[in-house]
Amino acid sequence: MSTRPYVSPSTGTRIRAVLFDVFGTVVDWRTGIIKDVGAFAAAHRLDLNEEQFADDWRGLYQPAMEMVRSGSRPYTPLDVLHRESLERVLKDHNVDPQALTEDDVERLNRAWHRLPAWPDSVSGLTAIRRTYIIGPLSNGNTSLLLNMARYAGLPWDVIIGSDLTRAYKPAPAAYLRTAGILGMAAGEVMLAAAHNTDLDAAKRAGLATAFISRPTEHGPAKTSDLAPTGSWDIIATSIVDLALQLSGQR
Amino acid sequence: MSTRPYVSPSTGTRIRAVLFDVFGTVVDWRTGIIKDVGAFAAAHRLDLNEEQFADDWRGLYQPAMEMVRSGSRPYTPLDVLHRESLERVLKDHNVDPQALTEDDVERLNRAWHRLPAWPDSVSGLTAIRRTYIIGPLSNGNTSLLLNMARYAGLPWDVIIGSDLTRAYKPAPAAYLRTAGILGMAAGEVMLAAAHNTDLDAAKRAGLATAFISRPTEHGPAKTSDLAPTGSWDIIATSIVDLALQLSGQR
Repeated sequence: MSTRPYVSPSTGTRIRAVLFDVFGTVVDWRTGIIKDVGAFAAAHRLDLNEEQFADDWRGLYQPAMEMVRSGSRPYTPLDVLHRESLERVLKDHNVDPQALTEDDVERLNRAWHRLPAWPDSVSGLTAIRRTYIIGPLSNGNTSLLLNMARYAGLPWDVIIGSDLTRAYKPAPAAYLRTAGILGMAAGEVMLAAAHNTDLDAAKRAGLATAFISRPTEHGPAKTSDLAPTGSWDIIATSIVDLALQLSGQR
Repeated sequence: MSTRPYVSPSTGTRIRAVLFDVFGTVVDWRTGIIKDVGAFAAAHRLDLNEEQFADDWRGLYQPAMEMVRSGSRPYTPLDVLHRESLERVLKDHNVDPQALTEDDVERLNRAWHRLPAWPDSVSGLTAIRRTYIIGPLSNGNTSLLLNMARYAGLPWDVIIGSDLTRAYKPAPAAYLRTAGILGMAAGEVMLAAAHNTDLDAAKRAGLATAFISRPTEHGPAKTSDLAPTGSWDIIATSIVDLALQLSGQR
């Protein structure tokens, strides 16, 4: 692995930190949620369609954050938004949350803290960490990202959750405040993400960008983000591939 | 190493995170600052007493933070306080900061980002990390603590600097906000520190406590914190010793 820092063609700056979108880019949220919903259903003898439940839960993710981004409600941690969405999805799947214990609902809500890494994530992150500072740049709150890192073995140097920036991507403040906390200029930070809208906002905020292809993020039905749609600095097929490209080996 | 979590006798709670005071407890600030002041003096052909310079610089640490703690000035990151103190110490040692370049002064100021770990720190932290979440609980700002971790190889899970809590120890908010960001009750967090005043404040805030003896922190002249002065949960001679005691092996 080369130790010569990568210089972004778009920002012209040496990269010091590579930060990652997490849900979908580093971890396979859909497989993790389906598994935990299945275990929950079995424990409570419920007949649930785990795939549909997972997709419905995730489907409420952007609308919930949009309430914060638009200013309709103050910053609210993702754990709380997930919990509100969960109670709605339980009802939509004919389960009364009131008939469950607080512990049971909260344990299921914390399925977002126990998501499996994609097969290439840990080795790719470990390689990139030899030369760069690495961390998440996620809408998750710090405790969620910390527990996930312990669960999935993600070797982050630093974890700045949305509770610390008090901003949800793609709001510019989410990227700029994170760089500021790291003591870096925006151009010294690269965002790696599987989602074009995230990269577009990061680029507008002055960050370098890397697209990571995750064609099965939404299962067989995925139709978005199958290919890069912007002029990102790096287009990679995995985090291992990103490590190779950053080091000039591919 | 046992994986049975330690239960604090004082809080009665299972410990989930062990957080560390950093300057003096995890890193040997005095040796690091003396070395960098020596290199600075050599590069600029200055005749400086490096030991005195280091002690004078550190001597302004508590008074500078006290301005923030007392409310006389708003939260100001430690990098900025260190820089203000450095300019004063340079003058006191007959060096005109204006005669130096901004880069030279700032590089010296960042000596606090490049401090060596005590010999037992990395192995002790690595052992504790097998069972507990570990991080600093320091008055340093996040970027300082991050750069120090990269320099000294400190395997933190998470770094919550004083810029994120906006409080300087021993203010209670420094301990309580850190636990809150981690999603933990105060009693689930242990502070390990070489300073009795820090442990006293942590205990009052509801944290578990461990004293780490660092008899040479201030060089041969150290007179404070040579022994524990409170009823801390654990009294350890090093971070390796703390790891053994947490796991019930000593």
